[in-house]
Amino acid sequence: MKFCNQCGAEVTVQVPEGDTLPRFVCTRCGTVHYQNPKIVAGCLPHWEGRVLLCRRAIEPRYGLWTLPAGFMENGETVQQAAARETREEALAEVGATSLYGVYSIPHINQVYMLFRAPLVAPEFGAGIESLDVALFELDRIPWQQLAFPVMHRVLENYRRDLQRRQFEVHVGEIVRPMGTGSPPPPAST
Amino acid sequence: MKFCNQCGAEVTVQVPEGDTLPRFVCTRCGTVHYQNPKIVAGCLPHWEGRVLLCRRAIEPRYGLWTLPAGFMENGETVQQAAARETREEALAEVGATSLYGVYSIPHINQVYMLFRAPLVAPEFGAGIESLDVALFELDRIPWQQLAFPVMHRVLENYRRDLQRRQFEVHVGEIVRPMGTGSPPPPAST
Repeated sequence: MKFCNQCGAEVTVQVPEGDTLPRFVCTRCGTVHYQNPKIVAGCLPHWEGRVLLCRRAIEPRYGLWTLPAGFMENGETVQQAAARETREEALAEVGATSLYGVYSIPHINQVYMLFRAPLVAPEFGAGIESLDVALFELDRIPWQQLAFPVMHRVLENYRRDLQRRQFEVHVGEIVRPMGTGSPPPPAST
Repeated sequence: MKFCNQCGAEVTVQVPEGDTLPRFVCTRCGTVHYQNPKIVAGCLPHWEGRVLLCRRAIEPRYGLWTLPAGFMENGETVQQAAARETREEALAEVGATSLYGVYSIPHINQVYMLFRAPLVAPEFGAGIESLDVALFELDRIPWQQLAFPVMHRVLENYRRDLQRRQFEVHVGEIVRPMGTGSPPPPAST
């Protein structure tokens, strides 16, 4: 951020009076510009024991598989955002959703919120951001071709919870990988 | 938003190519400025069956009672944000937190995430944003002097869940009140 979005003057970085963190502050009108984490909402759509994955048609991670998810918009609930992303990326409708995973990713200022969601029918297709969309048996998930560590974590939890037939809401953190290709350190589920 | 924070030129409102919603777009450099909901993270701190509430020293709702909560910052996890807000507003330290409520408030573009959190000791005080901080027995909560509907909902759930000794993660929506002073319509817990 270089300019104030209210008056167009330059901003500077300083700790406002009564605050404890450096912020972008306008040098002319004094407006403080806060920056906060974004919510990524998505679904784990399922149908008769299989889960729906999307193969990404966009960067980052073009060509890799993921659960349908994207940035929550103003004016919607988290569940509405998750269902909308599933509609857009997988052309699929989900029924009642159940919160399943909340993952903070502090190094990229995001919080993922994933919901278990039954498909209302086994009908789906590739939305504009997807190359392909398919239902996978849990022992056929392309673990080595998943786009994001957070999706790996959610699908691992789902496989385990389904085996023991007990679902809980998982809350955790995705830590920045140490180097290219290295897995993130273990953390809570 | 009137000006681009990247180049300082004026912004206009239009639907970018490949998008479906109107956004602020820079008339000079073309940067799209997305706006997304913010997370408000907080705790329901408890000690020997009592809950810790803060009396607000700031607007809105000056003088009314609330659970310690505030905007999540970049670079932290949701739990860290909730514990930090409790430290700042109630000068209190909490132990391991458990996700307890997720409430979307779409008309103000916020998502509240509240955690049940035991105090590590019965030590607390009024932070700079609080007039007073106190532990309340559940039958002594000042229901008519709570600052926000979301806090009413969380405390109602807690009183009920504590009676039946079973806690779940509540997910819901806070709907805009119909008129001044009227309660919000009933919704899921």
